[in-house]
Amino acid sequence: MNENNPLSTIIYGAEGYSQLSEWIIAQNFSKIFLLVDSNTHENCAAQFQSQLNGVHISEIIEMPAGEEHKHLQTCSGIWETLSDFGGDRKSLLLNLGGGVVTDLGGFVAATFKRGISFVNIPTSLLAMVDASVGGKTGIDFQGLKNQIGVITPPQWVLIDPNYLSTLPANELRSGYAEMLKHGLIADADYWKKLSDYARINTDDLTPLIQHSVGIKAAVVQEDPFEDGLRKILNYGHTLGHAIESYFLETPTETKLLHGEAIAIGMIMEAFLSVALCGLSKDALEEIRATFNAIYPKVEISAEAQTQMLELLKYDKKNSHGIVKFALLEALGKPKIDVEVPLELLEQAFEDYRN
Amino acid sequence: MNENNPLSTIIYGAEGYSQLSEWIIAQNFSKIFLLVDSNTHENCAAQFQSQLNGVHISEIIEMPAGEEHKHLQTCSGIWETLSDFGGDRKSLLLNLGGGVVTDLGGFVAATFKRGISFVNIPTSLLAMVDASVGGKTGIDFQGLKNQIGVITPPQWVLIDPNYLSTLPANELRSGYAEMLKHGLIADADYWKKLSDYARINTDDLTPLIQHSVGIKAAVVQEDPFEDGLRKILNYGHTLGHAIESYFLETPTETKLLHGEAIAIGMIMEAFLSVALCGLSKDALEEIRATFNAIYPKVEISAEAQTQMLELLKYDKKNSHGIVKFALLEALGKPKIDVEVPLELLEQAFEDYRN
Repeated sequence: MNENNPLSTIIYGAEGYSQLSEWIIAQNFSKIFLLVDSNTHENCAAQFQSQLNGVHISEIIEMPAGEEHKHLQTCSGIWETLSDFGGDRKSLLLNLGGGVVTDLGGFVAATFKRGISFVNIPTSLLAMVDASVGGKTGIDFQGLKNQIGVITPPQWVLIDPNYLSTLPANELRSGYAEMLKHGLIADADYWKKLSDYARINTDDLTPLIQHSVGIKAAVVQEDPFEDGLRKILNYGHTLGHAIESYFLETPTETKLLHGEAIAIGMIMEAFLSVALCGLSKDALEEIRATFNAIYPKVEISAEAQTQMLELLKYDKKNSHGIVKFALLEALGKPKIDVEVPLELLEQAFEDYRN
Repeated sequence: MNENNPLSTIIYGAEGYSQLSEWIIAQNFSKIFLLVDSNTHENCAAQFQSQLNGVHISEIIEMPAGEEHKHLQTCSGIWETLSDFGGDRKSLLLNLGGGVVTDLGGFVAATFKRGISFVNIPTSLLAMVDASVGGKTGIDFQGLKNQIGVITPPQWVLIDPNYLSTLPANELRSGYAEMLKHGLIADADYWKKLSDYARINTDDLTPLIQHSVGIKAAVVQEDPFEDGLRKILNYGHTLGHAIESYFLETPTETKLLHGEAIAIGMIMEAFLSVALCGLSKDALEEIRATFNAIYPKVEISAEAQTQMLELLKYDKKNSHGIVKFALLEALGKPKIDVEVPLELLEQAFEDYRN
């Protein structure tokens, strides 16, 4: 259950289904639960079950779709269902869905009877390239993202790009933002390759997903508990999370997808990188142009900006009241633990607006 | 945070306070929170703080006392307080109290921002000899004990037997039941030494506590995730937990303390041991006489028995619908994974009644 290695074994496509089926049968689980949300129940559950071989799902548990349900009450409902249907320590939970399902389902499994086995089958591009690696589970609490959670890796992650055909275009772009981030923090060539989004088609995605998973896995393996290197994955996320939380919590505002929020975060943090880490202005303009070509420009009022800066205080990476950023020295070259003065943060918002 | 070794370093008395103080100062925590319940706030908090050296507690968080508050809503309140008072990933939570405070406080810390540092300072005998070792954290859910939790050890456990002077006699006896169990499952001489409770006085307790902690630590080290040997610690607990849960959940019944419930469980499971594992009838009588001399005899109606047997189904150790017991072949000699037929369980209740 509780393993030392934060990396699960990641398996792909048709071969992945065979490996997973064999493993499940060999484990002789007492019950097998499939967690879905209303979208993946409709669009993915039948396809998933038909690809498994000789595995009987005991119960399908449906949770409502959307980040706004990624909270403790949803967990309570699932724990209750697991209990009611005879879930025990030898039960298995399969999480079939986007990051909300895999993050929340992972937390439910990691804490039910002090930890049962679970497997993630990400169905969104974001969950495939990001949530699939690293063992982070979590739920939102009082409007703050992933405030409650544990680091417990699933036994397996099965990535099947076929599910992406069920995904709306904006969701696909949202996941793509994390892949662009992988290029920016670790591989300038990969960044260049990804930059021209219009020319990427879905068939190209499988090797790109594998490349992104490889970058993230290498970082996580080096630093499982985010003491050092792993912080580079936070590029664009420190401001991005505050922006995302603000839009999520403000009833009058449109919600942003995670990738849309961190795209803004990455533009702003590139601005900070120029001021603090020697990133070239050309690189900033390249980053800005790439993201602006893919993601909608978002209106951020002065009032919204104030609230976002307030939210930064609650960032999980924050300690002793100081927020530290992961920034860029160059394309593909990150720098961690950079302290950013408040005035500069305000300028970054200003710069994004213009 | 998330460590491989489920054993925390256990430190004792005056020297323990020095070690703990030095460590806290060296860690440079951003905030230090002290979790207490209403009892330990009144009886232990001042004593605890006065023994620390150069350590400033940022906030004291009080939770209501009692097992009936060991649930998710209490956790929510504490997570909220931690957030409101600027708790971050470099904060420390000190849990000062009995098993409810250390189990729940441990769960809160292990899940807040995916895990912050925590230290347990058990103030009840039960928490000193049982909850202090093994890294189990947890809360009750829908009337079932410790259904939600994780295995995450605190960085340190500080045991100071001086807190026991604030403990009512029945609470002291409750903890003593776990010590008797340690004798029964691992050390027949220790069992004999403990048997005459009337002759034990509080000053004798320190070496006995250390001996019990040593037995439990040896078992846990051998089998951190309860795949095998660690199951011997469940002696008396399979029935004991069902008995405890029933009394906790039934408004018309008096509540039993944990030790009072597992004392009954140990008598009944000694009866099962005679039938299934060759425990001698003399040993059963010795066990029965010892527990009956210390713990009150409890009335269990036929209706209560039915409900307790129903509750067994939800035991965390249960899988595939079969409840397996840890029983005894002899005093000091346990046997795990014993399946018990329902008729025999009914006879064990009958035997306890007569």
